[in-house]
Amino acid sequence: MKLSILGCYSATPRVNTNPTAQVLDINNHMFLIDCGEGTQVQLRKHKIKFNRIKHIFISHLHGDHFFGLVGLISTFRLLTRETDLHIYAPKGLKEVVTLQMKLANSWTNYKLIFHELNSKTSELIFEDNKVEVHTIPLDHRVYTNGFLFKEKKGERKLDITEAEKANINVAYYRKLKQGHDVVNEDDVLIMNESVTLPANPPKSYAFCSDTAYSEAIIPIIQNVDVLYHESTFLDKNESLAQPTKHSTAKQAAMIAKKANVGQLILGHYSTRYDNLVDFKTEALTIFKNVELAEDGKTFEF
Amino acid sequence: MKLSILGCYSATPRVNTNPTAQVLDINNHMFLIDCGEGTQVQLRKHKIKFNRIKHIFISHLHGDHFFGLVGLISTFRLLTRETDLHIYAPKGLKEVVTLQMKLANSWTNYKLIFHELNSKTSELIFEDNKVEVHTIPLDHRVYTNGFLFKEKKGERKLDITEAEKANINVAYYRKLKQGHDVVNEDDVLIMNESVTLPANPPKSYAFCSDTAYSEAIIPIIQNVDVLYHESTFLDKNESLAQPTKHSTAKQAAMIAKKANVGQLILGHYSTRYDNLVDFKTEALTIFKNVELAEDGKTFEF
Repeated sequence: MKLSILGCYSATPRVNTNPTAQVLDINNHMFLIDCGEGTQVQLRKHKIKFNRIKHIFISHLHGDHFFGLVGLISTFRLLTRETDLHIYAPKGLKEVVTLQMKLANSWTNYKLIFHELNSKTSELIFEDNKVEVHTIPLDHRVYTNGFLFKEKKGERKLDITEAEKANINVAYYRKLKQGHDVVNEDDVLIMNESVTLPANPPKSYAFCSDTAYSEAIIPIIQNVDVLYHESTFLDKNESLAQPTKHSTAKQAAMIAKKANVGQLILGHYSTRYDNLVDFKTEALTIFKNVELAEDGKTFEF
Repeated sequence: MKLSILGCYSATPRVNTNPTAQVLDINNHMFLIDCGEGTQVQLRKHKIKFNRIKHIFISHLHGDHFFGLVGLISTFRLLTRETDLHIYAPKGLKEVVTLQMKLANSWTNYKLIFHELNSKTSELIFEDNKVEVHTIPLDHRVYTNGFLFKEKKGERKLDITEAEKANINVAYYRKLKQGHDVVNEDDVLIMNESVTLPANPPKSYAFCSDTAYSEAIIPIIQNVDVLYHESTFLDKNESLAQPTKHSTAKQAAMIAKKANVGQLILGHYSTRYDNLVDFKTEALTIFKNVELAEDGKTFEF
């Protein structure tokens, strides 16, 4: 998995800070998560081949998480895209996009498929043979979901030297990767584990922005490899976090600790703070493995 | 008048080119004309005090002319704006903006006043004691207006030396500026022209984007000081201009010549061209005073 942060600040776009947008590259999928104003320029700036995006996940309908979407959809049209585009978003977004296409008399020549979300419990919203995506219901001022991206268990890896030594016909290699025992050219049964190695452990990534501190998400994100959790405020401004239904860096770290995640990435910083290091310092008092999201930064895991 | 070009390219925003947006500073008004995606960042980048904007004019509902508006409206809210904001735009924009505010449950704490346009003839849409703004019906794929900004004739300028020499009480200076003759301290009638100078000639600016070549606009923009006219294409690609209802640099220059304008500014370039100079060269073959709009450039007139 490779996570590219295109924007990780709250509220308004500024000259050097961008609202929320991330690209998750996972098993040949390129998923776009949230799409604040200017996301298409960020995609260009960071040289991401954005025609590869087939699935866009929008957490909620506050502008800093989706005002760039209609422009991106329009740009795909101008670039003569033909591939289907799936959008997973709260109910209402389809109407916003469709209305603007109607007024511009500019319909996409590719298929635009909206998956409107309104469930208040976690649900499976995407699945193929390698990846599944679940919603993470969050606690914010409007209906909001985080998203959990889980690799499925992959195939076992063939130990080619051992397989050749065991005199197995190459026609059986596929079955070996799938975990089956096979018969070799001498009609001898070869045990799978003697010629294969375990698959890479499947990775998982949870995106949680925007949300108040909510222990209800813990069972859903338990043991994920990487958790992105919003930290709009520092603990000293906890009184601002509560009414706006945002979190502090300390609260994000508490969730990370209780959910036993591998790594915590902080983001969605209020632009009132000059120094991001304070977010990391605060979270490190609670949880040991903390990184700061920054526009343009990538994480591989 | 001071015109600041924030963006002057057609279609999609890119890393170094922005879609249409301009700020016209005229007699203490700051008018925003069109508002493509990223306009609020351009306003910040060019250090324009955008809280001074009270009137926004949107030519038409193609995304490269208004996708930045809802974000700007939202940012004004976050900056706790209280001043009324007037928006002059084709019918439909109010619904787009209102729908998004409703879904975000984020209403402005300032008054948002939509002036929805649907007339096919030129109309006066704004007027105060110093400026008036008229629509310029354009010929494009959707309902589109250009905008004509006209200063009203200003007050005469007082020749303070002559006025003192003529022994006029300062209480009459206001009347002098308004063009009246007055009686001096010795009860002698003083002719206005002997102690005042003519007002600065009122300036005018016409914004015409996007449009096919249309001589219908000539009577409206006749003799303006400065004409911004779109030139999406070069003459060699005139076959592309016709079906998309855009103009070439040559056609823009023909309009400028026939309307006897003072200066022509070209813009709304297709991103297919690497070299803007070709636009100027082409227009100069028809009309003598041509300038190129460029993102970040300002014109004073």
